Amino acid sequence: MKPSPESNAAFRKHLEGFIKVNDAEFEQILAYFSPKKLEKHQLLIRAGDAVHHTYWTKTGLLTSTFTAPDGKEHIIQFADEGCWITDQNAFYHHAKAIFNIAAVEDTELLSLSFENREKLCAAFHKMEHFFRKKANDSFTKQQKRLLTYLTSDSQQRYELLLQEYPKLMQRLSKKTLAAYLGVSRETLSRFTKKG
Amino acid sequence: MKPSPESNAAFRKHLEGFIKVNDAEFEQILAYFSPKKLEKHQLLIRAGDAVHHTYWTKTGLLTSTFTAPDGKEHIIQFADEGCWITDQNAFYHHAKAIFNIAAVEDTELLSLSFENREKLCAAFHKMEHFFRKKANDSFTKQQKRLLTYLTSDSQQRYELLLQEYPKLMQRLSKKTLAAYLGVSRETLSRFTKKG
Repeated sequence: MKPSPESNAAFRKHLEGFIKVNDAEFEQILAYFSPKKLEKHQLLIRAGDAVHHTYWTKTGLLTSTFTAPDGKEHIIQFADEGCWITDQNAFYHHAKAIFNIAAVEDTELLSLSFENREKLCAAFHKMEHFFRKKANDSFTKQQKRLLTYLTSDSQQRYELLLQEYPKLMQRLSKKTLAAYLGVSRETLSRFTKKG
Repeated sequence: MKPSPESNAAFRKHLEGFIKVNDAEFEQILAYFSPKKLEKHQLLIRAGDAVHHTYWTKTGLLTSTFTAPDGKEHIIQFADEGCWITDQNAFYHHAKAIFNIAAVEDTELLSLSFENREKLCAAFHKMEHFFRKKANDSFTKQQKRLLTYLTSDSQQRYELLLQEYPKLMQRLSKKTLAAYLGVSRETLSRFTKKG
């Protein structure tokens, strides 16, 4: 199935946050992507698998989860509307996935293969520019998360999350939030009662 | 002062890890950079400052340090030969620096301004490609560091650091290592005695 330009206006707006694209270019760019649908709870990437695609979230919500050797689950990333998600290390470096990525809600994605991403960047200098800028943003977001781990306790992390993603938090279960914050559900309950 | 192509063979090799450049191109690319020298203990970036440059380390060693509100110092990044360093969020987003970046040894850098980086990427599609690939690598390295914080204790983090950067560790003081691992110097001494 081909993604239609009309139904992908939000994706065009996302690109236009960094680059200018005309109608013809947008159609050409979109041709490198495929639409993909997931039902609630369906797995997109399973730890141990090879990862050949990265995904842009059109509607819905996904989580990327790392299961530590002790069995504890850590939510590494949320992706709601407008976010990119994949197992980045596996995708960039042709390694095996270490994350499970699953749909928390019914989800619609635009899927881009590694090969098509390289072709797209080679064919359109502006798409290479787009992905460079996105990668720089992802880096600084990830660094911010590392800093909050180094310097905040779990209650401060909860409050930061509440400030930054107030709407997203209503869409996530207590279990998922606790796994993102690295606390037990009991500890999370204490924070939510205070809030 | 103009950086000379001859004395920057290591930088050319670094670029050629991702892209091909001929002699003429390398000279053109190098013209966007300026050489910069720091003496041991000299500050490159001070928290609170605007950040207009990113730096590639030719020789020497730098650390990027975040001072938490409680006064505790966290080493965020080391940069030895071949590494890029700046206060990334401040540089990419025209914000104030939150890190102090200082030379641990006498250091020689290649300095690239934000404006020149954009011009370089616009003039050379292959440099846009280079910086996209570097940004993806930086993201996955940072993600790996976050995972070790989420899932390892300080002793495991020490052992990982020892495995990954055995030579670098001999160039760093106990104080710096402790600030990277987020432990006291006493705790670090216990690890080094075991090793």
